[in-house]
Amino acid sequence: MGVRPAAETGHPSAGRSRLAIVGTGLIGTSVGLAAKRAGAAQVVGFDPDSSALRVARERGAVDLAAASLAEAVEAAELVIVAAPVAYLPALVPEILELAGRDCTVTDVGSTKVAVCAAVNDDNRFIGGHPVCGSETSGPEYASPDIFEGATWFLTPQDVTGPDRYRMLHGFVASLGAHPVAIDAAAHDRLVALTSHLPHALSNLLVNQAGSTRVEGHEPLASAGGSLRDMTRVAGANPRIWVDIFLENSGPLREALAEHRRLIEQLEVALAGGDADFVAEWISEAGTHRRHLLAEVYPNMGGLFACACTWPTSPECWPASPRCWEPSASTSKTWRCSTSRPIAAARCR
Amino acid sequence: MGVRPAAETGHPSAGRSRLAIVGTGLIGTSVGLAAKRAGAAQVVGFDPDSSALRVARERGAVDLAAASLAEAVEAAELVIVAAPVAYLPALVPEILELAGRDCTVTDVGSTKVAVCAAVNDDNRFIGGHPVCGSETSGPEYASPDIFEGATWFLTPQDVTGPDRYRMLHGFVASLGAHPVAIDAAAHDRLVALTSHLPHALSNLLVNQAGSTRVEGHEPLASAGGSLRDMTRVAGANPRIWVDIFLENSGPLREALAEHRRLIEQLEVALAGGDADFVAEWISEAGTHRRHLLAEVYPNMGGLFACACTWPTSPECWPASPRCWEPSASTSKTWRCSTSRPIAAARCR
Repeated sequence: MGVRPAAETGHPSAGRSRLAIVGTGLIGTSVGLAAKRAGAAQVVGFDPDSSALRVARERGAVDLAAASLAEAVEAAELVIVAAPVAYLPALVPEILELAGRDCTVTDVGSTKVAVCAAVNDDNRFIGGHPVCGSETSGPEYASPDIFEGATWFLTPQDVTGPDRYRMLHGFVASLGAHPVAIDAAAHDRLVALTSHLPHALSNLLVNQAGSTRVEGHEPLASAGGSLRDMTRVAGANPRIWVDIFLENSGPLREALAEHRRLIEQLEVALAGGDADFVAEWISEAGTHRRHLLAEVYPNMGGLFACACTWPTSPECWPASPRCWEPSASTSKTWRCSTSRPIAAARCR
Repeated sequence: MGVRPAAETGHPSAGRSRLAIVGTGLIGTSVGLAAKRAGAAQVVGFDPDSSALRVARERGAVDLAAASLAEAVEAAELVIVAAPVAYLPALVPEILELAGRDCTVTDVGSTKVAVCAAVNDDNRFIGGHPVCGSETSGPEYASPDIFEGATWFLTPQDVTGPDRYRMLHGFVASLGAHPVAIDAAAHDRLVALTSHLPHALSNLLVNQAGSTRVEGHEPLASAGGSLRDMTRVAGANPRIWVDIFLENSGPLREALAEHRRLIEQLEVALAGGDADFVAEWISEAGTHRRHLLAEVYPNMGGLFACACTWPTSPECWPASPRCWEPSASTSKTWRCSTSRPIAAARCR
């Protein structure tokens, strides 16, 4: 008996499932919270870190704290493995050994090639990756809202049956995410660009500015909004990120080398005083930036925004779970994003 | 008769001044709004773009819209030149010709070497640069709050008299900013690191991700929080930024070349699977990032934060003019910054 898609049951597809969550950190606990909100009957959690498991239990993300991996996986219809990426190639096969024939196993790791190779064509495994990290970590920071509108990559294999894929697709959608099927190798090249390169540049930038002194002046002491925002993820959870950077070393190095090439091109234009190049380069960046906002936040895309002056904030209907000021220092225009259309907004 | 510092008058030093603002875009209009709020008696504005001048007048940033540069500068005690950087080396000397012997002239340009060289040791000019830009532009987006707690660089020269410097220092402080004296050349090297390099990397990153396709997948369509935040300033006002990049080409190219060197170092570590290097590199970034937050937002520095869940927002006492969520997608912890200590905060 598999987890049924929404169409079959009339409920969100988390509704009838017996879920197991292995790893109750930020993402695992958030999955639990979102699944419970979507109506999941029973969520069993396991984490070797008993305090992380306790917090997840206290926050209502898991109904049952399992004493062992075997106890968690036993009788589960869907297992979400939310462990650090470096553990996945060993952990997922171990879970597949423990899991039943009808059980589906997925993960939430930021890289997909290594774990997919490790499962050796087991048709019960479909890799996954919700694009919704944070510079925070731990179950204390978990929230059921983080998947709302986020891309959730799934890597079905040749051996993956359509029913199994449809079930997982429905589960992910019931948490508010947009499932996107992708090949594991393409996934890793894609996230090298969209996530690992930005994280690497953020670290590089803050280290460069932080280790420089200009005639006694500390660059970080006079940082404006651009440096502040570009270094938000700098230093993010080393326990997770060392593994991600090393795991995806190949595609990331390609992206870094290409970035160096683009920097060099800009240096040449600057040295030559090439105003046309610089103007076109900025204008291209503006076009891409608007495209990014329109793609990722389709209900916003510069279209939905209400000008509320702090301390008033926008009240949207239906309620939008994500609201922010794009430029906290100057702009007073709030922006909200949601996967559902916004019917109305006013300042409150 | 100069503008008197606060200590002399018992009022903010903007209180007794006859100010002229040349250029009523985002920054010029914000200066006007902040000066009026601080009690400036009369602000005269001029902008060759009559619609920008009209908006500044309508918003109350200027009391009088001058018909010409000469009319604006005539009888002013302090002139703030808020024109694009490329105009400054010609415009500031022109203003000094029109200005009286006791008048002080300053600017708000993002680079200081060219304009300081152009004034040819005129002791009435002190360069300035408030670090509070935005990806927006125009008087419509102006706000009196943008200087609150921001660094405002001043470049006194050897010929600058202490009274004149003290007056400008007091004026800048009365707008809520922190005046910091710096040599013009050091300033340009410093902002190359803290502002121009981040802006350049933001453009480079969004162009790289935006112009790539990975097996039909568009990287921008699955952008997460890191790419979104790191590209906030991408494509920012080309009319301003082409000039800034070219004007500060030397120091910026040095910063870019150093950045390439640091990228290459990371590539070598990744190729060698050097986990120790990567861990230390991330940890160094975390240290610098915490330092940045503590330096720039001393009343926050990770210390002031209140966990309000959207749509509630923090209410601070005394009121804080800048409040934001550092990670809109997941964190529910608001952060506020202010130049005054915060006595209390609660969710509202």
